Amino acid sequence: MIKLVVTFAGKFKAMKPTHIEHIGIAVKSLQESIPYYEDILGLKCYAIEEVADQKVKTAFFMVGQTKIELLESTDPEGPIGKFVEKKGPGVHHIAFAVEDVQQMLDHAAEKGVQLIDKTPRKGAEGLEIAFLHPKSTQGVLTEFCQHPKE
Amino acid sequence: MIKLVVTFAGKFKAMKPTHIEHIGIAVKSLQESIPYYEDILGLKCYAIEEVADQKVKTAFFMVGQTKIELLESTDPEGPIGKFVEKKGPGVHHIAFAVEDVQQMLDHAAEKGVQLIDKTPRKGAEGLEIAFLHPKSTQGVLTEFCQHPKE
Repeated sequence: MIKLVVTFAGKFKAMKPTHIEHIGIAVKSLQESIPYYEDILGLKCYAIEEVADQKVKTAFFMVGQTKIELLESTDPEGPIGKFVEKKGPGVHHIAFAVEDVQQMLDHAAEKGVQLIDKTPRKGAEGLEIAFLHPKSTQGVLTEFCQHPKE
Repeated sequence: MIKLVVTFAGKFKAMKPTHIEHIGIAVKSLQESIPYYEDILGLKCYAIEEVADQKVKTAFFMVGQTKIELLESTDPEGPIGKFVEKKGPGVHHIAFAVEDVQQMLDHAAEKGVQLIDKTPRKGAEGLEIAFLHPKSTQGVLTEFCQHPKE
């Protein structure tokens, strides 16, 4: 009898992010910030979206593989409102595109990382997303993003 | 007599960044931070470099088109030392890959942006680099990078 042993070397490959999906940047005002990204940097705002449960309005720009996601708070008590109040406008989070958010979360939790989301939830543009806590990520609020499986 | 009129539509195309060249992240210690990027995110540190005039040690990881550049200060009075003292570890700057740094700088200056560097200088990995002042860039310290022309 022959036993077939398969080692899933592919598993480890899949766990590496493929690219930076987006950089989330907290701003005071989309109206003031969009002209900087368009007129100075030469990028094009291709979408503006309100995410009511996060209390933000967002504006998107594409640069290579990566989106710039500007975030304006619609409520001083929302997460972006508090961030801008405390730290001023600036980079709020980095989102890595991954093939399997749940696998990344489980791996991070096993290694002792504090999770904000234990399972993926729906984010902007229909992506499956989850956040790691910046206390566990060397100060950078970190998001995983995955395109929903067909 | 025929006059040939050429309009440089290409100029405006060249002025748009092609991708995010790197994200600079201030950390307290490379020794503590590298294991997070390698063991949790699955990225591979491919270079460690000391940049004496910036008073930093840097560690590089590639993710898609973009590098993660970790920055540890070698001097509390250096720019990264002061940043970490004031704001804690976190994203320090974003670098856009462009075809012509000088052209981007001239354009930004014309539009009233405050420049840190009026002409490009040599950065890590032999790139031509220049910084815009975060006061003029909606709170995000912004760098332009260009591969030196052959």
